[in-house]
This record gives sequence, C-alpha cells and structure tokens, in this order.
Amino acid sequence: MKKVAVILAGCGVYDGSEIQEVVLSLLAIEQAGASWHCFAPDEEQHHVINHHAGAPTSESRNTLQEAARICRGEISPITELDPNDFDALLLPGGFGVAKNLSDFAVNGTAMTVQEDVLHICKAFANAEKPAGYICISPILIPKVYGPGAKGTIGSDPDTAAAFDAMGGEHIQCPVDDFVLDQSRRLLSTPAYMLATSVSEAASGINKLVAKLVDIA
Amino acid sequence: MKKVAVILAGCGVYDGSEIQEVVLSLLAIEQAGASWHCFAPDEEQHHVINHHAGAPTSESRNTLQEAARICRGEISPITELDPNDFDALLLPGGFGVAKNLSDFAVNGTAMTVQEDVLHICKAFANAEKPAGYICISPILIPKVYGPGAKGTIGSDPDTAAAFDAMGGEHIQCPVDDFVLDQSRRLLSTPAYMLATSVSEAASGINKLVAKLVDIA
Repeated sequence: MKKVAVILAGCGVYDGSEIQEVVLSLLAIEQAGASWHCFAPDEEQHHVINHHAGAPTSESRNTLQEAARICRGEISPITELDPNDFDALLLPGGFGVAKNLSDFAVNGTAMTVQEDVLHICKAFANAEKPAGYICISPILIPKVYGPGAKGTIGSDPDTAAAFDAMGGEHIQCPVDDFVLDQSRRLLSTPAYMLATSVSEAASGINKLVAKLVDIA
Repeated sequence: MKKVAVILAGCGVYDGSEIQEVVLSLLAIEQAGASWHCFAPDEEQHHVINHHAGAPTSESRNTLQEAARICRGEISPITELDPNDFDALLLPGGFGVAKNLSDFAVNGTAMTVQEDVLHICKAFANAEKPAGYICISPILIPKVYGPGAKGTIGSDPDTAAAFDAMGGEHIQCPVDDFVLDQSRRLLSTPAYMLATSVSEAASGINKLVAKLVDIA
C-alpha cells in the first residue's frame, strides 16, 4: 500500500490548516487505496483567530497539538518525518500555511519557509517523489522547487503575482481541476482559494489526490 | 432546496465535535442536494484536551467559537435556531456531545441535556421533522424522544446499556449502515463508535444523510 505524508499547519482556516480540505484529502487518500500519516511543526502558532468573530485573540496554541484534532491524534512532529518511509507528500491549505509553515502572510514575496518544512519538501522533490499542494500551499512551491516550477492558486491576481515574482510560473485553474508540473511530479489545485462549498473543494482535491497516488 | 440544521459541540474528537464526522456530514448534505447551517451553544466547553498528548490542559475555550473552525464561520448560536426555518436536524458525534451538549461523560444515565439543545431537538421531534444522530450523539435520543425510541451507538456494551437504561431501545448496527426509527423519523449511525478510518465513517454517514434528506 502506498503511503502519503500529510503536512498540517494547525486547525482552522484562519490560523491553521483548512479543516475541510484536510478531511477531504485524507478521505481521498484512503479511497485511492493508499494510507496516510500527518505531521506538523511542534511550535507555537503565529497567532489564534476567533473563527466566529473573525478577530485575533490573546491565546497561544501549538501547531502540532491543534493539527492533531483533525486527524484524531494520528500525527507526529515534522522532525520525525523520514521521506524514505513515504511515497508522496500532500499539503492542504489554510492561512496556517502562510502563518505557521511560512511567513508569507507577514512578509509576502520576502517570505521564508519554516526550516523543517522546507527541508522535508525539498527532500521529496530531490527524491523525485510526487507532491500535491492545495489551496494557498502552492505559495511554497517557488522556494521548494526553484525557478520555473508550475503551480496554481486559482485566479487571485495578487497571490498569482507573488507566485511569479518568487520565480514560479502561475497557471490559472478552475476549482474542479488541478495543475500538473510533469517534470517535477508536482500537483496543485485551488480548493478554497476558489471553492464556495465543501463539494466544490472536494471536486479538485479528489482529482489531485487520485493522480498523486497513481503516480506515486 | 431542503435545509439541514447541524448542531456542533466544539472542534476535536476528545473535547468537541468529531471533526471528520462533521465534514463528511456537510459534504453528504451538499451531495444530497440540500444546504446546511451550523449551530452551537455559546458557552464555555467542559474542558480542553491536548489532542497530541491525550491529556487535559488548563485552557478554557468557547464551544461556538471552536465549532466555527470546522464550518468556516457558517455558524450561529443555538439560541438563534428556529426549527421552522429547517427541514431536518443533524448531530455529528465527538466527546463534546457528552461533555458540552450534555453531561453524559460525567453523570452517565443521570445525565441532563444542555437546555437549548434539548429544546431544539424536541422541537424537531414534535414537528415530526426528521433528525439524524451520529456516533455518540444518539445518547441524547432517550431524553429527546422518551421511552421506546430506537437508535444505535454501534455495539459498545456499556453505552448501549446506558441507552436502554434511559428508556431507549438500542439496536446493534454495522459502521456502514444506519438505524431508522420509522415512526419517529429518527436516524442513527455508529460512525467513529466503530469506524477505524475516514472512509469507514463516511460509509454510514453518507447513507444516513441521503435518507435524512430524502424523507425531509
């Protein structure tokens, strides 16, 4: 059975991983006949957002502990992720990717990627193992794959421009499809960068994950 | 378009709603051609569990604010739920049902149901609008529907005995099916009371939700 490592960024669209995208991803991995295990940085989150009011709170939370909620504890610190143990990599979206896995939300195109995440993503790339980036996660692609890597964040002009400014080649893509950079074995899909419902998000995620597992 | 009210209990299997069950439920509602809106009590949770370590923390969190994470803010306080606006009711599982929507986790068969939740669940029952109870949520059924109501929590002997002791009639049910109490228009499915994977949980939830929307 093929094994997919899934990198999470917390629990909640505004300060962590986009929960629906994660669950849809895990379901799609299983339905493709593969297994999954989740990983996240064992670090404090950038901040905490009250998802009812849409405003920051004074709390502090740990990215790994919060991410564990989505996957019922089937998670390990990202420092324990050995790419040799997995056939493919998957990163769901959510603002946590731009706040906890990188600082794109703060620094834009001057962003850096959390060092353990960058190390792991590059290791999968260098091993030519396929990787899928969902929603806002493709913003990491230029830093991982270097100039010319193709990916999509849907059609948002500012984010697409940032993707290109960092050396990527942004490709517009509808919510129910994905972009494949064939030579890099690199897949991306817009999900909630464009989706207006759970089922719309599922349409693109299901196709991306099926392809990811197929080529793994 | 038929409308389903979904009652949540926080965000995370050990202290709130079971996240995967919620997302699978929302997806199934959409795929059945219906729409959803979520509701939760605007109250402090019973407690907070570190889902990586599996141990309580000293934090306090609000049930409504945490539940909002799962549904991207498409949620209102349960006091704003008017049963006249909806065709069916759905309660996913998670320990939050036994900790925040009721005190079953503390008081067992001497449990009481949170008063707004009890009021709403009884209103749907009295209006003969169908309701679906998932995972541990059926433990509320005897208090809502009174003696003789049929439901399932899978096959756990202690929980089944508690269900019967409170006046319900427990029926064993496999993870990929649901129990229908026809006269009460009442559906239940074990989900993570039995499931060992996301796709197993989905198998019963999908069938229950399809039937729930069909008879709504």
